[in-house]
Amino acid sequence: MDVMAHVTAKARAAKEAARARALASTRAKNEALLQMARGLEEKTAPVLEANRADLERGRAARLTSAFIDRLTLSEARIEEMAAGLRQVAALPDPVGETVEAWRRPNGIEISRVRVPLGVIGFIYESRPNVTADAAGLCLKSGNAVLLRGGSEALASNAAIVNVLGKAVEKAGLPADSVQVVDTADRAAVMAMLTLDRFIDLIIPRGGEEFVRLVAERATVPVLKHDKGVCHVYVDAGADLDMAAAIAVNSKAQRVSVCNAMETLLVDAAVAATFLPRVAARMREAGVEMRGDDRTRAVVPGARPATDADWDTEYLDYIVAIRVVDGLDAAIQHIRRHGSGLAEAIVTSDLRNSRRFTREVDAAAVLVNASTRLVDGSQFGMGAEMGISTSRLHARGPVGVRELTTTKFVVMGDGQVRE
Amino acid sequence: MDVMAHVTAKARAAKEAARARALASTRAKNEALLQMARGLEEKTAPVLEANRADLERGRAARLTSAFIDRLTLSEARIEEMAAGLRQVAALPDPVGETVEAWRRPNGIEISRVRVPLGVIGFIYESRPNVTADAAGLCLKSGNAVLLRGGSEALASNAAIVNVLGKAVEKAGLPADSVQVVDTADRAAVMAMLTLDRFIDLIIPRGGEEFVRLVAERATVPVLKHDKGVCHVYVDAGADLDMAAAIAVNSKAQRVSVCNAMETLLVDAAVAATFLPRVAARMREAGVEMRGDDRTRAVVPGARPATDADWDTEYLDYIVAIRVVDGLDAAIQHIRRHGSGLAEAIVTSDLRNSRRFTREVDAAAVLVNASTRLVDGSQFGMGAEMGISTSRLHARGPVGVRELTTTKFVVMGDGQVRE
Repeated sequence: MDVMAHVTAKARAAKEAARARALASTRAKNEALLQMARGLEEKTAPVLEANRADLERGRAARLTSAFIDRLTLSEARIEEMAAGLRQVAALPDPVGETVEAWRRPNGIEISRVRVPLGVIGFIYESRPNVTADAAGLCLKSGNAVLLRGGSEALASNAAIVNVLGKAVEKAGLPADSVQVVDTADRAAVMAMLTLDRFIDLIIPRGGEEFVRLVAERATVPVLKHDKGVCHVYVDAGADLDMAAAIAVNSKAQRVSVCNAMETLLVDAAVAATFLPRVAARMREAGVEMRGDDRTRAVVPGARPATDADWDTEYLDYIVAIRVVDGLDAAIQHIRRHGSGLAEAIVTSDLRNSRRFTREVDAAAVLVNASTRLVDGSQFGMGAEMGISTSRLHARGPVGVRELTTTKFVVMGDGQVRE
Repeated sequence: MDVMAHVTAKARAAKEAARARALASTRAKNEALLQMARGLEEKTAPVLEANRADLERGRAARLTSAFIDRLTLSEARIEEMAAGLRQVAALPDPVGETVEAWRRPNGIEISRVRVPLGVIGFIYESRPNVTADAAGLCLKSGNAVLLRGGSEALASNAAIVNVLGKAVEKAGLPADSVQVVDTADRAAVMAMLTLDRFIDLIIPRGGEEFVRLVAERATVPVLKHDKGVCHVYVDAGADLDMAAAIAVNSKAQRVSVCNAMETLLVDAAVAATFLPRVAARMREAGVEMRGDDRTRAVVPGARPATDADWDTEYLDYIVAIRVVDGLDAAIQHIRRHGSGLAEAIVTSDLRNSRRFTREVDAAAVLVNASTRLVDGSQFGMGAEMGISTSRLHARGPVGVRELTTTKFVVMGDGQVRE
C-alpha cells in the first residue's frame, strides 16, 4: 500500500466533508451524537470481536498487563463511551457564538464569531475508548477528524469508526467527516504531519519524545500534549493536614495521568513536622519516596533522589521530595524542572499565594487544591481531547471551545477607508 | 562568525529578560514606551546616519525605487515612530486581564488570566519603522522580542534597537528584552526557527514562499502572515454606487497591502450596468483591468485574464474581474482562489448577506464595506504586528492582546479530586 496516498485520500475526504459539518445545525450535530451512542450500543458485538483480535495480537506481542488493560474493551466500557457521547450532545455548541461585538466611529459593526477549525488530526495512544470521545468532541465543534490511534488498537478503532460513520450518515451528515487511518505503518503518522493542505491542526498525545518528533516534522500547526512534571509546594504556615491531603491526592488518586504530582517541595521551616506525617500517608497509598538529604533526615525510609529525579515524569507510585528554603527557592525549582502543566501551593499566606500564582508560569496554578483538578470535566468545560502544554491557541484542557477559531464579521453601509 | 551561536546567545538573553518583563507593572511598561519615543526623538541623527549607510548600499545594489522608498527614514518618519510608541503606551494593558472566572460546585474558583507569551521572534521586511512598532507592541504585551528585519536595513535596525534598549533600561526594565539579529546571513533566520527552547512564537511577515519555508523549517510555533488574495463580490440588487466606491477603495486606496482587493466578482445580472461604471473609476485611479470573456464584452479596454490571474496577489494597480452566476458561484470562486484574509460582499439582500458571512471562510468577512478596513487600527484594536492568516491562536489583526496567552488560576480551601 502507498501509505502517503492512502492517508492523503482520507485527509482530502475529511476536508471535503468538513464544510458540511461546519455549517451543520446544532440540532443535526446533537442528533448525530445520539445516533453514534445508539450505534455503539447496538453494535457492541462486532466492536468487541475486533477488540478481541487486537488483544490476541497484543498478548502474542507480550504487551504489559497495564497496556492490555488499557486496550481492553468490555460491554461496560462501550456503555461508558456511549454515555460520553450523550454528555457531549448535552454541551453547549461553541460554533456561532459571538465572542465580542462592537461598533466603530464610522458606523461599521464588528463581531468576532466562533467557527470550526476545519480538519483535526488526532494522534493518540492505544485506548480505543478515546476514539469515540475524540470523534464526539470534533463533531460537536463542527470539525472533521482524522484519527490515528495506537497501532495495537487498529482493529478496534476501525470497528468503532465504522459504527460512528454510519451513525453520522443516518443523521444526515457526511460519514467522511470521521476518518480513521487504519494502517500500523508509522509512515502514516509522518504523512499526516505534512498534509497542511487538508489538515488544520494536529493534536499529538503521547510521550515527550514522540511529541518532540511531531513538532520537528509537522508543517501542520500542533497543539502539544506532552509531559506533566507537576509540583506541590507546602509553604511554612500551611494547614499541614490540608497539605498532606492535597499532596497524597495529587500523587496517588491516579498515577498514570499528566496532572499527577511528581515532586513534592516542602519549606524547610515545616519539613520536620510535615514530612513524617505525609510520608506515613504516602506509604499507606503505596507510594515509593525519593528524597534529598534534608528529606531523608526526617523520612529515613526514603531512597536518595538523583538529579534525574527532578525532571522525571514517573506516571507511577513514586514521588520525589525536596526540602527548599522558602517560596523563592520553590519557584526557582519549578522554573527549572516544571513542564508548565499544573503547579500547586499550599499556604495560609496571602502574599505568597499571590506571588505563586503570578510568578509561576504554567497552564494552571493552584492555591490549596489538588493538581488532579486540572481537567476539562473538573473545570466544568466538559470532556476534553487532553491538556495542552502549548502556549498558543489553547493552554490547559482542550474541550469543544478550544477546537474552534474565530472570524470577524463586519457589517457596513458602504464604509470605505479614508 | 558562528551564526547559530550568535543567534542562540541573543535568544537566550531575551528569554532571561522575558521574566522581568512579564512581571513588569503597566506603569513601568508605559514609562519605557515613553522613554523609547523620547529616545528616538533625541537620537534622530545617529539613526538617520545608519539609515544613510543602508541606503547607499541599497542604491549600489540597484534596489528598486519603491524598495528604497520603504527603506528610507526621515525626521518625519522617526517622529511617526515615536508617535506610534506613545499610542501603544495609551492602549490598555492586556496582561493580568481576567478573561473569565467561575466557581465550581466543590467551591474552587477558577479564573483565566492573560499572561505574556514569552519571547516573540519577528521576521519582517525592510521597513525600519516596523522595528519600533514591533518593539513597542511586544513590550506592552509583556514579551521579550528578537527582531530580524530585512538584511538591507541592518544598520538602521541596529541603530534603532540600540536607542530603544537604552530607553527600556532607563525605565528599569532589562535592555536585553529587545534584541536585534544584526547579521545579513540568512542562516540567522533558519537558526531562529528552531530555537524553541528560547523563542515561544515566530511571526514571519513576507511573501508566500518565505512563509511556506518558515512553516516547513520551524519547530517554534508560527503565526503566518502571508498573502492576501481578497475579493469583493457585487450581488444583483446591490447599490451600484456603493459597490463601485467599495471596489475602487478596496483596490486602489493602497495597493501594496495584504487587505487590498485583487479580484472583483460581479453577478451576471448586473454586469452590463455595473462594470462600465466601475471600469471608468478604476481607470481614473490608474488601475489596469484583466477580465474574463463576459467582463471584456462590456469593458472592451480590459485585457484577457488567464487562469493564473485568479490566484495572483498583485500588490499593484491591477485588478482581475470575473462575471459569476450569482452568490453560489461567487462563494465557489472564493473558496478555490481566496487566501482566507478578507472577503467582501456588496448586497441589499439580507439572506445573501447572511449566507456570505456564514459560508465564506476567512479571517474577516465584510458586508457593504471595504476590505481595506480589515486592520487593527480600523478595528479599534490598536497597532498591529500584521494580519494573521493562521487559523490557530489569532486570526486577523495581531495586536497586543493577540501577543498574550492565558493561564488558569485555581483558588481552593483544600479541595481534592474524589
